[in-house]
Amino acid sequence: MAGTVTVPSPSVPSTPLLKDELDIVIPTIRNLDFLEMWRPFFQPYHLIIVQDGDPTKTIRVPEGFDYELYNRNDINRILGPKASCISFKDSACRCFGYMVSKKKYVFTIDDDCFVAKDPSGKDINALEQHIKNLLSPSTPFFFNTLYDPYREGADFVRGYPFSLREGAKTAVSHGLWLNIPDYDAPTQMVKPRERNSRYVDAVMTVPKGTLFPMCGMNLAFDRDLIGPAMYFGLMGDGQPIGRYDDMWAGWCMKVICDHLSLGVKTGLPYIWHSKASNPFVNLKKEYKGIFWQEDIIPFFQNATIPKECDTVQKCYLSLAEQVREKLGKIDPYFVKLADAMVTWIEAWDELNPSTAAVENGKAK
Amino acid sequence: MAGTVTVPSPSVPSTPLLKDELDIVIPTIRNLDFLEMWRPFFQPYHLIIVQDGDPTKTIRVPEGFDYELYNRNDINRILGPKASCISFKDSACRCFGYMVSKKKYVFTIDDDCFVAKDPSGKDINALEQHIKNLLSPSTPFFFNTLYDPYREGADFVRGYPFSLREGAKTAVSHGLWLNIPDYDAPTQMVKPRERNSRYVDAVMTVPKGTLFPMCGMNLAFDRDLIGPAMYFGLMGDGQPIGRYDDMWAGWCMKVICDHLSLGVKTGLPYIWHSKASNPFVNLKKEYKGIFWQEDIIPFFQNATIPKECDTVQKCYLSLAEQVREKLGKIDPYFVKLADAMVTWIEAWDELNPSTAAVENGKAK
Repeated sequence: MAGTVTVPSPSVPSTPLLKDELDIVIPTIRNLDFLEMWRPFFQPYHLIIVQDGDPTKTIRVPEGFDYELYNRNDINRILGPKASCISFKDSACRCFGYMVSKKKYVFTIDDDCFVAKDPSGKDINALEQHIKNLLSPSTPFFFNTLYDPYREGADFVRGYPFSLREGAKTAVSHGLWLNIPDYDAPTQMVKPRERNSRYVDAVMTVPKGTLFPMCGMNLAFDRDLIGPAMYFGLMGDGQPIGRYDDMWAGWCMKVICDHLSLGVKTGLPYIWHSKASNPFVNLKKEYKGIFWQEDIIPFFQNATIPKECDTVQKCYLSLAEQVREKLGKIDPYFVKLADAMVTWIEAWDELNPSTAAVENGKAK
Repeated sequence: MAGTVTVPSPSVPSTPLLKDELDIVIPTIRNLDFLEMWRPFFQPYHLIIVQDGDPTKTIRVPEGFDYELYNRNDINRILGPKASCISFKDSACRCFGYMVSKKKYVFTIDDDCFVAKDPSGKDINALEQHIKNLLSPSTPFFFNTLYDPYREGADFVRGYPFSLREGAKTAVSHGLWLNIPDYDAPTQMVKPRERNSRYVDAVMTVPKGTLFPMCGMNLAFDRDLIGPAMYFGLMGDGQPIGRYDDMWAGWCMKVICDHLSLGVKTGLPYIWHSKASNPFVNLKKEYKGIFWQEDIIPFFQNATIPKECDTVQKCYLSLAEQVREKLGKIDPYFVKLADAMVTWIEAWDELNPSTAAVENGKAK
């Protein structure tokens, strides 16, 4: 591994949650000064930095953080020909970090995201909230009108079936953004000055059967439960599309979570998204996606995974075949993407032989 | 009509929203002193008071309100033998008010609900928020992570299909409660001191295909779009069950809204729910429902309405037949309920001949 540096820090809080069970994955092309603001919350954890773009460039990481860093040369060396499934010049490359992590949980954050404040003015420990979200159950099978029933001061309301109150395991926690909202290029263009200033104090489960737009900016998940479905697709350099990496992962992941009865939460925590990306550049990247998503959404809404698929890998390979068959008709890109989805699973299993073995054992 | 009194008030605000298109329906057994607190918000509107219990009792309504009042004798006189579908000694009787209303919109509220305050300390005009909810579209077909995309300062996020941004017509607006949460008897018993103090500043669409527990305490709907589905069932006197009236309506309504591509919102506005009902009395009422709902929920989750049902009435009659056939096996009560559902539609069409005619015309 390139650039592995471990510096124990004296300022580590006494008992950070899941300290040895969670990696923070950060894709970047620049010096990681943004970590200074996150120091009180992130320093106890191990970072996996995925350096995008020119591998000869040196990325500066503030002192005191424990991290490993991978650039494109590392990715090519580790994955060999399978490196083709990892995007280049697009933040989709972050999923390489999910693959090399050895931890149960992953939190991923963009380097233009800062610590937000709650309405009382207190700094929000986004990571802590994600961990709380992941460690408490979800409620995908029935809607609770008072939001997260497991939260202090809340519960299931009248009319909520008692047999469903145990909930489901939570696979994904999707956090939101204050300041710059995650808009597409057309909306950015129409509303250049819109800022999100509304703090909605809620975490909710995205119901079973419902798709949502998953943003990769502020996202945590349980690698053991859903890791192999968190592939961010083929985007950026050499590809006809960008900015659909997290969406793609979100749609695939949600269909698989629904199949495996796993939960997906959205809402808290907020981060402060500091700056809007260029809407003209974004429009160029999104252009085809804006058309394609009109077919992709119905495709995922109607996708069913065969009953015998009882592992994430099997579910994902089934989806890959459906993508090839049904979306391949829209554009040859989707055939290439389906190939990459298969390669991704092969690479995942290669780097995570124990999981692969367990999964195969389970399947017998 | 019994007890119709119209007193124009000098304190009516200049332009209350939908003043002549909305009725406020209140079921009660006591003097309506609670209206004093609502005066600034409700006085411009027409009230329909459904007096439950002893019809010889006189219900006092504060001066200055424009209202009509129906007691059991009125209901029996107006509906004749069809009055059997209207519950007695249960707030389920409120749906009689929906039937006799001549307005496009209905807001219904319990008489133990008071004006809540938002986090800034300002009185919440619950009715105004419901009207806003009803007059703006819903988004049942895809989930928006920033909640209501039509709200000032919000929009659809990246990855939301453009073809779905027109949304759907909103049929129902379900409001929430600060202070006493709407818990069932077992939860009340386990958490006697739990109060809801969390103000979640959000309105969201309950996604298509997702059921939720609809509470009748603070609820508004578009009568023209969904009125005939808002039947609160057979509860209370002579029935084996209580406190499932609004739940029943919510499940039927949601299945029909999904079939007709109508939207249902939940969240804001909050009201202040002043006092918890007696959990022991509630347990007695809910007892059978707690068992039955374990079968009722899967029944509604799997219910499908034939394509040719293109009016609320037809959808409702189709549901009634399914209730008779499938839930009738659980208990004879559901056969009686299915009969009552049919009677309800007959009574609705009798009292609303123009809608019935339009609906029939549409069906030809």
